[in-house]
Amino acid sequence: MSSFDRLRVVLVATRNPLNMGAAARAMSNFGFPRLRVVNPYHVAFREARSAVGASHVLASAEDYQSVAEAVGDCTLVVGTTAVGRRTLQHPLRRLEYGARLIRKQLRTSHVALLFGSEKSGLSNEAFSHCHWLLHIPTSQENISMNLGQAVAVCLYELARDGKATPDLPRGIQKQSGASAAEVERITALLQEAMVASGYLKRKPTSDAEQRLRRLVRRLKLPAGDVGAWLGILRQILWKLRN
Amino acid sequence: MSSFDRLRVVLVATRNPLNMGAAARAMSNFGFPRLRVVNPYHVAFREARSAVGASHVLASAEDYQSVAEAVGDCTLVVGTTAVGRRTLQHPLRRLEYGARLIRKQLRTSHVALLFGSEKSGLSNEAFSHCHWLLHIPTSQENISMNLGQAVAVCLYELARDGKATPDLPRGIQKQSGASAAEVERITALLQEAMVASGYLKRKPTSDAEQRLRRLVRRLKLPAGDVGAWLGILRQILWKLRN
Repeated sequence: MSSFDRLRVVLVATRNPLNMGAAARAMSNFGFPRLRVVNPYHVAFREARSAVGASHVLASAEDYQSVAEAVGDCTLVVGTTAVGRRTLQHPLRRLEYGARLIRKQLRTSHVALLFGSEKSGLSNEAFSHCHWLLHIPTSQENISMNLGQAVAVCLYELARDGKATPDLPRGIQKQSGASAAEVERITALLQEAMVASGYLKRKPTSDAEQRLRRLVRRLKLPAGDVGAWLGILRQILWKLRN
Repeated sequence: MSSFDRLRVVLVATRNPLNMGAAARAMSNFGFPRLRVVNPYHVAFREARSAVGASHVLASAEDYQSVAEAVGDCTLVVGTTAVGRRTLQHPLRRLEYGARLIRKQLRTSHVALLFGSEKSGLSNEAFSHCHWLLHIPTSQENISMNLGQAVAVCLYELARDGKATPDLPRGIQKQSGASAAEVERITALLQEAMVASGYLKRKPTSDAEQRLRRLVRRLKLPAGDVGAWLGILRQILWKLRN
């Protein structure tokens, strides 16, 4: 079993089926298959059209009458909150940090991640089942997130790979830089063009050549483009001289 | 000017005004105020009710006829894509890595982050204005994200603080652990209770005391809870002896 299969996303008293569909879609996007719902307002949530590509997540969602039952098999229960003016009785962790703790726990056991209703979030009763609370770091000016977006951001962070480095699509070679000789050929052509265009006569400086050389090197020319640039410059130079 | 003010979120040919509202809401949640739209399908997008708490973002959105105009003042233009079966001609970067490059650029200049239509993403024409492409790392089984959720995840990553550590809400003291003396008092009471309950007689071991001591220490008792535990144990002990 992958550790992602051990997460239970628990939607408590959700009002809008479209939001439940959006949550399911985000779960499917990030590879978390197990959805649980506690007392949704609309029992027909499984038909939500917003669950694009995630109908299997909604179809296999487990229905519960209480938070206690929905988190029964979990060793860690985490509630989400926008904080706001509420007085909290729980330790509160920012998503970046809290996700690390959840990931660690998922290696060996089940974790429940609770999301409350769109209107009022999780109740204090729901909070009382939680070991700690998680909040997404938002701007103070607008702390209230859309439910589907909040689920997406939390699951993204759980699936996040902090060691990610540049990657390339199939069929594209890693772009290597032009060689010094190629760069110098381009520099030389450019200088000829500048001479031919009268630029160097109009703005003479003692270190014109060096300036130009530095200028061209700052371009970081890709090796694959050298031919094209040489062609363009030769054409310009030809035109300048004729 | 904050570096977040230098980002332009550019929605190209978006179909559903509700998605534009959701994008605006996410922008407001993460503190990015500057929205630009290119040829939306519905001109009345500014009234989208999904922009909860973000009507100012929609109201001040700038309208453009072409991608070229919408990105004109930006020194870095990044397109988003789900990749899929498309053959890409651009370097492609995972969000975790690409966001670092965008953040760096935002320190000194404007950056455009482009999102395409719900149906087909960004066109090749739109791609041609981009320096490179960004993709959100999704599960291969469902790579297509909802537009509002994709915007939220990207902006979250841009605003993300990798150094985040535990924080606490107003009014909750950092929880300190019980002192060794307190833990020992609890251990002693527990041992008395074990003796009184006959437990130690039923399962005698030579190192019972040490086992119990280790057991209690692994609980990591909070200092503020010591009194309550002592009270409970004393009560149990009293009951056991009477």
